[in-house]
Amino acid sequence: MKSLALSLMAALLVSTASAEPTATGDLGLVIERANGSVLLVDQSERAALARIEGLGDLSHASLVYSPDERFAYVFGRDGGLTKVDIVTRSIANRVVQAGNAIGGAISDDGKLVAVSNYEPGGVRVFDADTLEMVLDIPTGSKTIGLVDAPGRKFVFTMWDTGETWIADMSGAEPEITKIPDMGENPYDALITSNGRTYITGLFGEDGLTALDLWDENPQPIRVLPNYGRGQQEMPVYKMPHLEGWALTGPEFVLPAVGHHEVLWVDANTLAETARTKTYGQPVFAMARPDGRQVWVNFAHPLNDTIQVIDTVSKDIIHEFKPGPAVLHMEFTPRGHEIWISVRDAGKVMIYDTHTFEKLREIDADSPSGIFFTARAHKTGL
Amino acid sequence: MKSLALSLMAALLVSTASAEPTATGDLGLVIERANGSVLLVDQSERAALARIEGLGDLSHASLVYSPDERFAYVFGRDGGLTKVDIVTRSIANRVVQAGNAIGGAISDDGKLVAVSNYEPGGVRVFDADTLEMVLDIPTGSKTIGLVDAPGRKFVFTMWDTGETWIADMSGAEPEITKIPDMGENPYDALITSNGRTYITGLFGEDGLTALDLWDENPQPIRVLPNYGRGQQEMPVYKMPHLEGWALTGPEFVLPAVGHHEVLWVDANTLAETARTKTYGQPVFAMARPDGRQVWVNFAHPLNDTIQVIDTVSKDIIHEFKPGPAVLHMEFTPRGHEIWISVRDAGKVMIYDTHTFEKLREIDADSPSGIFFTARAHKTGL
Repeated sequence: MKSLALSLMAALLVSTASAEPTATGDLGLVIERANGSVLLVDQSERAALARIEGLGDLSHASLVYSPDERFAYVFGRDGGLTKVDIVTRSIANRVVQAGNAIGGAISDDGKLVAVSNYEPGGVRVFDADTLEMVLDIPTGSKTIGLVDAPGRKFVFTMWDTGETWIADMSGAEPEITKIPDMGENPYDALITSNGRTYITGLFGEDGLTALDLWDENPQPIRVLPNYGRGQQEMPVYKMPHLEGWALTGPEFVLPAVGHHEVLWVDANTLAETARTKTYGQPVFAMARPDGRQVWVNFAHPLNDTIQVIDTVSKDIIHEFKPGPAVLHMEFTPRGHEIWISVRDAGKVMIYDTHTFEKLREIDADSPSGIFFTARAHKTGL
Repeated sequence: MKSLALSLMAALLVSTASAEPTATGDLGLVIERANGSVLLVDQSERAALARIEGLGDLSHASLVYSPDERFAYVFGRDGGLTKVDIVTRSIANRVVQAGNAIGGAISDDGKLVAVSNYEPGGVRVFDADTLEMVLDIPTGSKTIGLVDAPGRKFVFTMWDTGETWIADMSGAEPEITKIPDMGENPYDALITSNGRTYITGLFGEDGLTALDLWDENPQPIRVLPNYGRGQQEMPVYKMPHLEGWALTGPEFVLPAVGHHEVLWVDANTLAETARTKTYGQPVFAMARPDGRQVWVNFAHPLNDTIQVIDTVSKDIIHEFKPGPAVLHMEFTPRGHEIWISVRDAGKVMIYDTHTFEKLREIDADSPSGIFFTARAHKTGL
């Protein structure tokens, strides 16, 4: 009996250890692409806490967080939707919901998770709690640029037909509004952080198309007609990620397509205001949360370098080479530090954004996207 | 021996229970003013979880959160600084650091907590971990409008001398910059959410004074010369809280002083653009996180009512009476719901911001300020 009691005690101790009080506000996950794993990290400790494995194909993976910052919904390229519990550091649930997926979103109330699919083309909406499918929206097209918007809405766009659809999930029955003529072959989209403006990038023609979602009947607004590939034919894998748009206050910063520069765009009129020459073709141009700096990384073969631009002078104020294949950057929520994935160095590197000093390196297996839990509280991330 | 083992097991069970995995992203604290307590609440469950008592005089209390969303630093009017652990639901530490205090702030790296004091006048800075004082900054004046700014800075203003000081805590030694001539008797201040613009309200004269903290040598900028008490003498307790300034995108919304209206102000130029008539003298004018709505509460005796303004039309689109003494409002981070303190009803009421439907009431003892943990990730709150 004594030994049974002690075994029970031991079991309780183990369970106590794994159920250690965990505040989740300063945690994050790093996608380990080659491995199908994610690395749980702690911003305050500047440390890796645990590796969670078995998430399938994580090339181009992204994720969103539940409002309590406990669960991450990881969208794999292979159609896998994996719910990771960062408190117990384990997979809570996993479904393979399509053959080929490209990103997802979570409703503003945290109850619905939507995934955007190439094959079969469309959007599928899942109960965030159980991962049971609650709605299938076939679109007859590869579907891209899926974002959440205020009012339990999802917005997404069709590569083949150039339509944007708004799915309003706030009522008993979903209501879908279809907006045609967004342009030829939209390849990506973003929503501004206030959820008002949805902007699609076009592969089939120059320029971008915006929608004012505050309008009762949003109509396509063509902007930046000179933004695009222009004369120069470019392979699609070099199109910059639109989620890399940075809002610096009165202006956006936008990675140019195929040119060594970033564009400054008036946030209200969406007209171009300036350009800054850069070291290479920008992939992400990300504003520090206070908007004072923009950090830019570049396409292969210049992807060992980062430049930092001051948003007042629009000059490059710092340049450095973290190492081979800088894939992604994530600022701490208040912007005092930045975490950078350096894939071929097998490291995540942490820098002070004021002094530019390197503070720490963390080992990671081919790290790509870095996602801090503070994203739970933001629209469209 | 068996009974000892079982006692130990019981003890472990208790400790397991109180150390239950807790994701903290959707929690919050409500100040219970009369009682010296705070109520721990869960946004997702729309429920109270626990009451934590013994925090002293909580009239006009406010609080900030640690970056991990585990600890709240509660600033009491009596000079008490209480560190509340929302995971274990207990007081982790408490010091009485001055005789009469008025708010505080936490540095962007979460390492330093600063408190603004009337008596003795000045700012005291504490180690966020231990609550040991690391710096005493006597100012020879009642000190108000203390905020944190990017780069481990604190900014605060002197009621008696009209100076604003910037304390830069990023180096080995603190560096203090003093800016005179901010105006006569500044009574409150705010910092914009990007940490760029610091604005003081004046009691001794009309108008406001702004500082561009991105400037190498910030100089006082006088704005809105007609903003203030004007001809009408008003008691100080009716001055609106400046933290109630709402940024709706290109504009701020500002409660007028002594008039039944809110003012719309261009966020870039700080020039007035419009006014909207309201039901009473506004106290807080708070923008929903997406900026589409502004919710306004009013001074006594019209403090039973809330009006909601659409930021595009600038019209009042909804008005209702939650109950007697509506003191504070807090939106969920993505804005789908709002929590409202109705002091004399002894309730916190929760509304859907899209349908305006009341979703739940929670009992609370004279509730005032509501603070959700997502504030941890923001500047100047």
